[in-house]
Amino acid sequence: MNILVIGAGGMLGDKLVKQLAQAGQIAGQQITKLTRHDVILPPAPPSSDFAIATLMGDVSNVGEAVSVIAEKPDLIFHLAAIVSGEAEADFDKGYRINLDGTRNLLEAIRAIGGGYCPRFIFTSSIAVFGAPFPDSISDEYFTTPLTSYGTQKAICELLISDYSRRGIIDGAALRMPTVCVRPGKPNKAASGFFSNIIREPLVGLEAVLPVGDNVRHWHASPRKAVGMLMHAAEMDLTQMGARRAISMPGVSCTVAEQIEALAKVGGADRVKLIRREPNETIIKIVSGWPEKFDARRASALGFVADRSFEDIIRVHIDDELQGKLA
Amino acid sequence: MNILVIGAGGMLGDKLVKQLAQAGQIAGQQITKLTRHDVILPPAPPSSDFAIATLMGDVSNVGEAVSVIAEKPDLIFHLAAIVSGEAEADFDKGYRINLDGTRNLLEAIRAIGGGYCPRFIFTSSIAVFGAPFPDSISDEYFTTPLTSYGTQKAICELLISDYSRRGIIDGAALRMPTVCVRPGKPNKAASGFFSNIIREPLVGLEAVLPVGDNVRHWHASPRKAVGMLMHAAEMDLTQMGARRAISMPGVSCTVAEQIEALAKVGGADRVKLIRREPNETIIKIVSGWPEKFDARRASALGFVADRSFEDIIRVHIDDELQGKLA
Repeated sequence: MNILVIGAGGMLGDKLVKQLAQAGQIAGQQITKLTRHDVILPPAPPSSDFAIATLMGDVSNVGEAVSVIAEKPDLIFHLAAIVSGEAEADFDKGYRINLDGTRNLLEAIRAIGGGYCPRFIFTSSIAVFGAPFPDSISDEYFTTPLTSYGTQKAICELLISDYSRRGIIDGAALRMPTVCVRPGKPNKAASGFFSNIIREPLVGLEAVLPVGDNVRHWHASPRKAVGMLMHAAEMDLTQMGARRAISMPGVSCTVAEQIEALAKVGGADRVKLIRREPNETIIKIVSGWPEKFDARRASALGFVADRSFEDIIRVHIDDELQGKLA
Repeated sequence: MNILVIGAGGMLGDKLVKQLAQAGQIAGQQITKLTRHDVILPPAPPSSDFAIATLMGDVSNVGEAVSVIAEKPDLIFHLAAIVSGEAEADFDKGYRINLDGTRNLLEAIRAIGGGYCPRFIFTSSIAVFGAPFPDSISDEYFTTPLTSYGTQKAICELLISDYSRRGIIDGAALRMPTVCVRPGKPNKAASGFFSNIIREPLVGLEAVLPVGDNVRHWHASPRKAVGMLMHAAEMDLTQMGARRAISMPGVSCTVAEQIEALAKVGGADRVKLIRREPNETIIKIVSGWPEKFDARRASALGFVADRSFEDIIRVHIDDELQGKLA
């Protein structure tokens, strides 16, 4: 089993590669090689029983896409993307990376022909949906994105279903919840506070909460997000029929419930480190985001969410803080 | 008002140009120029009070798209497409014309900049939906096309909403019902029989019915289809908000009801000219097609369907047979 991870330099890509290195096999087959691809240099590779190659490049260049596909990987994870804010600020870059990059990969696969039909797992986004929303968004709800990023992801979903139907790939597009608690430093992404208000107090630092306590959102831990990618790589995707885009399960909770979970898991004192500083821009952006999904289709197909936001915090403590709270 | 009609050589394009020539104005503004564009030579232009230019070319070539947009038309009708069957048989051609052609036009518009924001009316298709269907398909139902043609149309819908949101175009994507009665000779399109079984008997010729009488479908006369395009060009599209794709109203009826209407309008004898010759291939294709829409959104926005299938037949007699039955 030869695996290609595009976007391996990102947080999720890095965790996925580590998980694959640790497992040594996937879908009952030994991993013989893994190639990490990204525009940035990924962190040092984990130790593994198989060779890990690292390539730098940009698949929005047709030649680069052809080149990474030339080795005919059996399994491709395509996680590379320009994030929402940047895709909105830079129209050309967003369409080039998020749409043309994906299409270049699909076309490079099609050009090989001769029955080559790799498993192709794509990280889509709940940004394919646009407000106003029903209370709970089903898999049959229409995709009317309100950002160029969401538009690009929705287009890629359509391409992945069509290329799968055509037998060019065996693909799936997973609409990931917001990954929380995101490790690392606070960043300026509008969604950053969902993680900041947990991660920072857990190490005794202040965090800013720019929205109201009643804001509801849809979360998955990095561990469960990687689990979803692994499951999509292993399961029989023909169970999805022609509809290869699917909303992943998650934990729906309000900011108030997040804070309550922090108090339970980390102690009430940590909550005092959350500073309320309403930011009208972020409040407006977040008001257009989905709050809750009816992910029964994914659940029936074996995709698993965290059980609660408390569990999400415990995963962070286990995986990022060596299981210890200072 | 300078108008560009791309795909002017098709049946609908030709009727639209005739309607514009007759009206002389649109949205309260005099038409000063109209350019007909197609890969095939359109029929002779109608007489009009304004200049009609005719260009042959293919907007899937970037340069051609830039060239037709260079004149900065105020209103663009983009009707050009490879039809469903051909887009399925020729993967490259379908994506090139139906997706890249549209994107080239949108990008050529964006490249002009300086506040240029033309009205952009696009003919989408009910093929953006894929079976299984609910009894009646609402505008909030998800787009899961089962053909490459439907995929390409669904992608163009997403692009048109995003480019409209960005202020690059003021666009709308109209999901047209099957246009019936389609004038001309019987063709080999899988949908051809819906028109054949009316048009041919009306002039004393035999027609083949390849499916069962209980097949239900969604129809609009060519006259009403042109009316929908005109309405989209004239109305305030901001009423559509960010959701610029919309299912047009139509007449839902079974083949049996079509035949009943034929008997009422044309006389019972004509029905004897319909020869039942079941064709498993066509039966299978048609079984995946939508039957009925809940087009209340379009109706509320002033789009108008025929009142009955009898009316659809009367339109055909008026517009194609000079109002007379032989």
